[in-house]
Amino acid sequence: MPSMEDSIRLNAAEILCIGTELLLGQTLNTNARWISQELAILGIPHYKQVVVGDNTSRLKEAILEASKRCNYLITTGGLGPTNDDLTTETIARTFNTDLEENLIAIKDIRGKFTSQGIENMPASNQKQALFPKGAEIIPNPKGTAPGFIWSPIKNFTILSFPGVPSELKDMWAKTAKEWFQKNSFNENIFESRVIKFAGISESSLAADLEDLLEKENPTIAPYADIGEVKLRITAKAKNKKKADEMLNPLEEELIMRGKDHFYGKGDDNLASIVIELLRERGEKLVVAESCTGGAIGAALSNIPGASDVFIGGIIAYNNSIKKDILGVSQKSLEAYGAVSNEVVKEMARGAINLFNADWSIAVSGIAGPGGGSPSKPVGLVHFGIAGPKGCETMQANFGMHRGRLNIQKLCIVGGLNQLRLIMLTRS
Amino acid sequence: MPSMEDSIRLNAAEILCIGTELLLGQTLNTNARWISQELAILGIPHYKQVVVGDNTSRLKEAILEASKRCNYLITTGGLGPTNDDLTTETIARTFNTDLEENLIAIKDIRGKFTSQGIENMPASNQKQALFPKGAEIIPNPKGTAPGFIWSPIKNFTILSFPGVPSELKDMWAKTAKEWFQKNSFNENIFESRVIKFAGISESSLAADLEDLLEKENPTIAPYADIGEVKLRITAKAKNKKKADEMLNPLEEELIMRGKDHFYGKGDDNLASIVIELLRERGEKLVVAESCTGGAIGAALSNIPGASDVFIGGIIAYNNSIKKDILGVSQKSLEAYGAVSNEVVKEMARGAINLFNADWSIAVSGIAGPGGGSPSKPVGLVHFGIAGPKGCETMQANFGMHRGRLNIQKLCIVGGLNQLRLIMLTRS
Repeated sequence: MPSMEDSIRLNAAEILCIGTELLLGQTLNTNARWISQELAILGIPHYKQVVVGDNTSRLKEAILEASKRCNYLITTGGLGPTNDDLTTETIARTFNTDLEENLIAIKDIRGKFTSQGIENMPASNQKQALFPKGAEIIPNPKGTAPGFIWSPIKNFTILSFPGVPSELKDMWAKTAKEWFQKNSFNENIFESRVIKFAGISESSLAADLEDLLEKENPTIAPYADIGEVKLRITAKAKNKKKADEMLNPLEEELIMRGKDHFYGKGDDNLASIVIELLRERGEKLVVAESCTGGAIGAALSNIPGASDVFIGGIIAYNNSIKKDILGVSQKSLEAYGAVSNEVVKEMARGAINLFNADWSIAVSGIAGPGGGSPSKPVGLVHFGIAGPKGCETMQANFGMHRGRLNIQKLCIVGGLNQLRLIMLTRS
Repeated sequence: MPSMEDSIRLNAAEILCIGTELLLGQTLNTNARWISQELAILGIPHYKQVVVGDNTSRLKEAILEASKRCNYLITTGGLGPTNDDLTTETIARTFNTDLEENLIAIKDIRGKFTSQGIENMPASNQKQALFPKGAEIIPNPKGTAPGFIWSPIKNFTILSFPGVPSELKDMWAKTAKEWFQKNSFNENIFESRVIKFAGISESSLAADLEDLLEKENPTIAPYADIGEVKLRITAKAKNKKKADEMLNPLEEELIMRGKDHFYGKGDDNLASIVIELLRERGEKLVVAESCTGGAIGAALSNIPGASDVFIGGIIAYNNSIKKDILGVSQKSLEAYGAVSNEVVKEMARGAINLFNADWSIAVSGIAGPGGGSPSKPVGLVHFGIAGPKGCETMQANFGMHRGRLNIQKLCIVGGLNQLRLIMLTRS
């Protein structure tokens, strides 16, 4: 028969992050967000997060409070070898349980030192092989701090992870995720996909999807980024096959409604999509950048294998380079100014000719804070895209309130997206 | 006479962040970190952070718990106009207090709509001018959600802010910071400065400063970034003059010990320092970038006013550009390969000649994941710096385990730092 306490405990998870560096603001708590996303995908309700420092009594208090409220407590941090790593010991003490050495864990930790040529493991690391009696160990392939899963009382399980994000993520994916899928009350799985759009605002896209946004299963959650919008669609279903059957038609519908603003899914970004398009066609790209100073080239070169299709380009920050290297005419610079359709057209053509490329992106704009005028305000940007069928230009006013860095970022997204659109529709 | 509860309440602050989007992992909680840093600077102890969703009962529970533990509760989020914005109402109800309309606030909110040409303020925004009776308003110059400071019971004050980071920061700086300085028990002020170093690892710098790192006032906290290390030094003193007297000699000592790794303070970065050096000398810079694809130029052009000294450059991603535009010899490419001292030297010289500049940074490396070999592994990078007194080259192996993006970032830091060192010491 469940006790009074059992009856008020929620079938939900809480997150408890442990570390004085979090309370001092020295570390941004990305772990809490990442675990929150994973819990959302697993469909496990999550109502509270707590952060405490490396302090035994406050940590104990937080563990006790959570044990009265929820079924699952996920902790991060405090599993290291030093004196301020108190998590395992405090969890065990809170439930009056002894620690015992796990032989597999101690062997594994010793092995990690041996493989680095260190024969004598520091004594402090021995502590990392101690766990509350009865705990199940979560191996840590990337570090010396194993985690553990332990149910000290009925209907309350603690899952403890180290605070290093890469170790936590790896361990979660290999052990905890499956544990939750097997052990949590939840009979459904949650499957999520991300669909990406460019050249449309969050509010415009949302207006086009108004009738769909209220759906409860699958759900659609929009996220705005600079110059881009992402939709995360999530289905709750008995299994992956059923979830896919729900997500496939919705994904198709959203892509259709997004028209040519839709550009990719999952880990795609505009640079990777442009590189993929070029690779499919066996074509080469160059850039001619003024106000972005090389940032479009940098975005392209962030993509592994970019060198197959991205040749390079000219950073024409100064007008002398626009003239001397790209062959922009003095006449156009004088008559129209460096931020004009005429000049970006000559920049785009100059670059394509200079490098014998198939495509070029040229950009010239006023990133601010200085340099604006009533007719050419800060935020005004001209793009030129040259390709096998000629050169097109377009302009945008991103608004001076955005600030220099965001205007530069919008130029990257804008330039790559214009090239994508022209490649898809005009050739 | 203080009650039992008063006596156990800590003279400390807690942070309560309110928003279901935080629990779903849709938003990264940067507010909690930012406030933590501000509390550290103010010298206010901070032992606990809590996140709850837009849920009246859980929010009420969290407020009540905090009211028993600490003197100051800082809340973020839930001050908006929609139905899921529950913070103000729930705070008032928790302490059985009525809401009342603040006339200055309602006038201000209406005015914000009028200034955008909207004559009829939406009815939902009226709610944002309601506050618990007796609360002091924190004006919000950037948005429609004012915050408030309210002491519902003795020795317990709630400071409520909206969740939008830019609004919160602005309001904190203009109102709350001063309030804490006046009202908190703390008779001391805390003053912090940041000192920046490049080209040295956190552990090497820490080893050079070992005898200083244990100091209790002023304190020194090291933070590692990619290719850089920052030291935050913080003094606790009766007033700013006394704090400065403590920080000045420490800052001097740290700069001296950091030798030429020290490059700047506060908001400086390597690009801004390089631009400042060039501006002082009236000299011009160009770049010739291979593996970074334009990222050094982009870092320079992020700095307002960069165009005064940064002319532009060549993104020589492909060897054909190294040859055709920069004039790198086929012989050097064949004999030494594109990633070699000889080639970066020819790139650096080619760029300086092409643009008639005073200085150039050339970089060529293997960013991976492909393209490595036993003699030239992923992570190997060569730099060439050409200037008025000739061209110098240097190489670094950043290690393939770093990954493509971090290798590219290390190239930006490395290239800019090498130029800085040569400008300072060899001319």
